[in-house]
Formats: sequence, structure tokens, C-alpha cells
Amino acid sequence: MNQFDQKMISECLELAKKAWGRTSPNPLVGAVVVKNGQIVGRGFHPRAGSPHAEVFALKEAGEGARGATIYVNLEPCNHYGKTPPCTEAIIRAGISRVVVGMVDPDERVAGGGIKRLVSAGIDVKVGVEEEACRKLNEAFIHRVIHKRPLGILKYAMTLDGKIATVTGDSKWITGQKSRDYVHFLRAGCDAVVVGGNTVRKDNPRLTTHGVSSHNPLRVVMSESFDLPWDCHLWDTIMAPTVVFTLPQDVDSPLKAHLLSQGVEVVECENLSPTVVMDDLYERGFNSVFWECGGNLGARAIASGNIQKVLGFIAPKIIGGQGGFNPVGDLGITTMQDALKLHHVSVQRFDDDFLIQGYIQ
Amino acid sequence: MNQFDQKMISECLELAKKAWGRTSPNPLVGAVVVKNGQIVGRGFHPRAGSPHAEVFALKEAGEGARGATIYVNLEPCNHYGKTPPCTEAIIRAGISRVVVGMVDPDERVAGGGIKRLVSAGIDVKVGVEEEACRKLNEAFIHRVIHKRPLGILKYAMTLDGKIATVTGDSKWITGQKSRDYVHFLRAGCDAVVVGGNTVRKDNPRLTTHGVSSHNPLRVVMSESFDLPWDCHLWDTIMAPTVVFTLPQDVDSPLKAHLLSQGVEVVECENLSPTVVMDDLYERGFNSVFWECGGNLGARAIASGNIQKVLGFIAPKIIGGQGGFNPVGDLGITTMQDALKLHHVSVQRFDDDFLIQGYIQ
Repeated sequence: MNQFDQKMISECLELAKKAWGRTSPNPLVGAVVVKNGQIVGRGFHPRAGSPHAEVFALKEAGEGARGATIYVNLEPCNHYGKTPPCTEAIIRAGISRVVVGMVDPDERVAGGGIKRLVSAGIDVKVGVEEEACRKLNEAFIHRVIHKRPLGILKYAMTLDGKIATVTGDSKWITGQKSRDYVHFLRAGCDAVVVGGNTVRKDNPRLTTHGVSSHNPLRVVMSESFDLPWDCHLWDTIMAPTVVFTLPQDVDSPLKAHLLSQGVEVVECENLSPTVVMDDLYERGFNSVFWECGGNLGARAIASGNIQKVLGFIAPKIIGGQGGFNPVGDLGITTMQDALKLHHVSVQRFDDDFLIQGYIQ
Repeated sequence: MNQFDQKMISECLELAKKAWGRTSPNPLVGAVVVKNGQIVGRGFHPRAGSPHAEVFALKEAGEGARGATIYVNLEPCNHYGKTPPCTEAIIRAGISRVVVGMVDPDERVAGGGIKRLVSAGIDVKVGVEEEACRKLNEAFIHRVIHKRPLGILKYAMTLDGKIATVTGDSKWITGQKSRDYVHFLRAGCDAVVVGGNTVRKDNPRLTTHGVSSHNPLRVVMSESFDLPWDCHLWDTIMAPTVVFTLPQDVDSPLKAHLLSQGVEVVECENLSPTVVMDDLYERGFNSVFWECGGNLGARAIASGNIQKVLGFIAPKIIGGQGGFNPVGDLGITTMQDALKLHHVSVQRFDDDFLIQGYIQ
């Protein structure tokens, strides 16, 4: 039965992923209703404001839900938000057993849904495939606990640690499979951040290139506001773009041009990675993907805005002292003081490797 | 039978490895004699000048060799060198079948041993576990074909591509398991090369730290001859050391000091990685392990003296533009011109990764 429970929670996670990148500030949740060993209802939470996964699964199960088990990767909610509490829907449907992947990370509600179900006489099991459940919703969990979006720094470098040649050429470091995976990762995030240098040098699109219909908000952080008149990021039909900069003249021609293109311009006195992340938190974002150069990346790390680092490594040697490194100055002078990553893993994409880990 | 043959050649490779790092300029070779499905004789080539693997295996098999099969990972020799030809020993022993992992790479003799055995009426099978056989003896093969030792560049860097902090601190980048594996790799090589900077900054031992009783020749390449009076490398009781430098004054006190410590001093007009590799080839070396800093590493790459690159990557972020990079200037300005590695692989040592590949 244990193995069957694991399989059903894995099924929930697969369903949950159908809304990859679309649920913020809500989590990714899937649910299945099982009767006599058969799945009789499936559902996932498609986006904030829509019903929760449990509601869809119960609806599909109909009368089959009576005496059945419902599996869900996150503790069912027990409060009235944009939708009524799932616990009541579960009780009303006559469910006799609930298997929950993980409890709700929000301390104010953690366990409340489970308590309500138990008090209604329902058999509740908690903590199945918990690590996978936490992993899928790591950004949501981070948001709930820290009141900040999860910051993910991503870069691609050669095997000798270069993100570009001495002349700044960086097309392409990694192969197609790695780049496809980056598009997939973008699709799972709410925003992608670059600095002005990246816009000027690389003219990136920062879209998901057909991997998903969801594109993250494209964020440019530029103190100088020395940005090109024409570039892919100002094409806001493809995806929305916001530029964070210092206060500009009221009659700035570039500002007028950007606004006319549908680009949002946010002017702030003390522009910093923290100010940007504060703003993105207020927008209800769970995860922010930093695809910037080394200097902005270092500022984001130093200010505590990066929790996860993804380093793509291509099997190439470019050489050169100085030049372009993935992370700028952090003021670290001894190897002992290096930022150590934990929960480190590696993935291979053709001949490229992705090494990732978490900053303490 | 095919699977059994593979298993026996793998057994030969295991036997061959007992002489890890000790056979240059000869290859690593193991042999087993099998009769009625049982191994009745085993042998390996322990060092140049000693009998070959086949001779030891046949000796252990004794009369059991008559009508038996002998397995050997490299084609048996057919010429008088320091020892008589193995083909004659095999024929004399009454062996009826010979299974050979790979043919001898030396074009002058390739296939000659096999031809001799076939002409004596022996059933010969060639090419079993050939990739593993080639891998084990890649340095020997390179030496025979190119008349040069195999050059292997090894470095350890953080996940953001740094081999030291801005102040030069590099102890330690990787963990104990990675460092143990480096000691094992050293044990398999004939020489380890560093530049004067590494001696001055790190004062390394460059020994195998008990992993093996074999230590490679420790080579220092220093144009400036600005080397410390006292350092671990001048302790030649542990392992031999040679310093390659430009011509020095006859009465150089440092030179006299080094010679008194048992350090060999080689003075050459046009010191370069190629001159060093030429000299090491003449010493009968198969493999040379470059554990130098970025500048000497780049010179060794640019002059074609590196065939294999080993990059250890520790899950740490140190930050900093400029500073210490694993490979110095190669004059490469576009990403398309980057040196691409092939036959790329990854190994994990706790939280460190070793990515390795071959330069075209």
C-alpha cells in the first residue's frame, strides 16, 4: 500500500506540473481520487483564482468519491480565499481517506486542513514522497516562509570558467539541449532578470521559445538607463517587459518610447536587487530567474536575493585571465569563506553539464 | 563464450593495473591462461625490463597451458627486446587459442604477433573489450603513435570558475575524496609539472600521499629560477625532482643548493613546454600530468602538449572579475573558436565533480 501511495502522489505531481509556471502566488497542486485501486478522478490547480486541484478531481469522480481515497501533494486548504475551503468539499464528497504529500508551509495554517479532516473522522496520512513535493513547490515554500520570491541565478560557462571571450562573444556556450532546458526553466518562473549590459550586448528574447505558452515577465535592471532604442525585449506582444531604473527626466525620449511599446518603466530612488525582488514579491511572484552577467549576479548574491545557483558547463576551453566570469566581486578573500552550496546535483545535456545547488 | 571472453579480458585489465604508473615506456598488460573454464595462470608486466605478462601467466599455468586459451589485453610481442618474444613462449607452451584485447598500436609491429600465432596454427581472436583496453593504455598508445608523452592538464576550480581567491588562496578548493583521486592519478603518471608560481605560492609535495609507493618525477618549469631555498619539492628522499630553467651562472648559489639536495637541474636555451615534453619523452615517459597554474597551462595547450583536460569543480562560489582562472590567454576571441573537448565524461567525488575530455 505504501508503494501505491507513493505512485499516486507522483501522479499528483505530474498533474500539478501541467500548470508549470502559471499558479503564482499559489503552489503547483495535483489531486487524484482512487476507488478500489482505480483512479476515478484527476485534477490540478490551473492558476490563481481558479478552483483547487481537489475540486476538479472530486468533480470528475462524482458519486465515485464516496468512500474513496483522495491523494494531493499539498495539504488541502481550510480557509475561504478566492475559493471555498477544500477540506469541506472533501468531507461533503464522502471521502474516507486522505493522503497528503506535505503539510502547508505557511505556519499560520500548517496542519489546520489536516486537523479539520481528522475531526470529521477521515483517515489522514501525511508525508508521502515529501522530498519530491517540497522540490516541486520550493519557490512557493520560500515565498510563504520568507515573504520573498525564490531567487535562482543561472549562468553558462566553459570548462575553464568563462561566460564570454575577451571580446564579449558568448554565442553559444552551451548546446541546443541545454538551451532548450533553460527555456523550460524560464517557463516555470515568474520573472527573468537581466542587467543593461546583457540587453546591450546580447539582445536576448528571454522567452520560452515554444516550450510553453507561458512566458515570464522580462525584467531589466539598469541604473544608467543607457538602453538600446530597438531590441527584442521591447517587443511586448511576445511577452511583457519591465525596466527598473533610477528616476528619469519627465521628457526622457527613451522612456516615452518604451512606454509607447508597452514596456513598463519603474523608477526608484535606491535601485538594487532587493528593491526589484520586493516589487516582484508584491506582484505575487514565487520564483525569479536571474540570467544576468557576473556583476549584477554578484550584487544579487551579496544582498541575499539568490537561494539557488545553476551553472551550465560546456566542455570547451576559451582561455584568458580577466575577461568575463560568471560571478563578480563578492569581497571573499579566503577559500574557507567561499559560499558553499548544498543539495548539489548534476544533470547532463549532450556534452554539457548542469551543476546546481543551494546557498545556505 | 563472448561474455566469458569479455570477463577474462577485464580480468587481464585488473591484473595490468597492479603495475599502475610503473611500466613506462611499456604498456600496462595482464594475461590469464584458462583451461576448461578455469583460470590456471595469471600474470602482469611489472616494469620495463621485466618479463611480459604472458610469461608470468604461462609459468603459473605450467603444463596446464597445453591446449589452453591465453587472454591478454594487448597483442603479444613478436620481437626480441629486453625479453624474448611472447609469441614464441605461447607457441612453445602449447596454447591452442589466444584472445587479444587490442592490436599493438605501433605501426611497425601492429598485427605481427597475431600473424605469427596464426601461422603456428593457433586460433586467434582480436578486439575484445577494446575500448577499455585502449583507455587503460591511452598514454602508451599516444607515445607510440605521436612519439610524445600524453599531456594531461588538471585543475580544480569553484563552480564560478576560480582556482584561487583574489589574494591567491586556494586551500582547499575540492574535498578530500577529490584530492585522494588526484593522488591516484599522479600514481599512474610518470611526471607532474608545475611552474615556479605554484612552487612559491603553494609549496606542494606533488606526491601520491600513500595511495601508491610510486611517485612521479616532479618537474618544475621556471624561466626566472626565482625559486625558494626551502620547499617540499627539494626533499628528494620522498620523490625525485627536476628543475627546467634557462642557462644559469656557473656559481649560482641556488643551483648548487638544489644539486646538493639531489635535485636535477636542466638548463636549456629555449625553455618551453615542448622542450620539457621532449626531454620527458627521451626519459621513456608515457604520461605527464600538468598541475600548473593558468598561464603555464595555456602555454602547454597552445603548443599542443595537452591532449586531455581534467577539471575538478567544487560546489562553491568565490566571485571576482579577474583573479585566478584555470587557463590563461589562448588568443581565442570567438566562442566558435573555443577548443572543444570530445569523449566527455563526469565523475562525482562527494559534492565535487570531475569533468574530463580530450582536445581534438
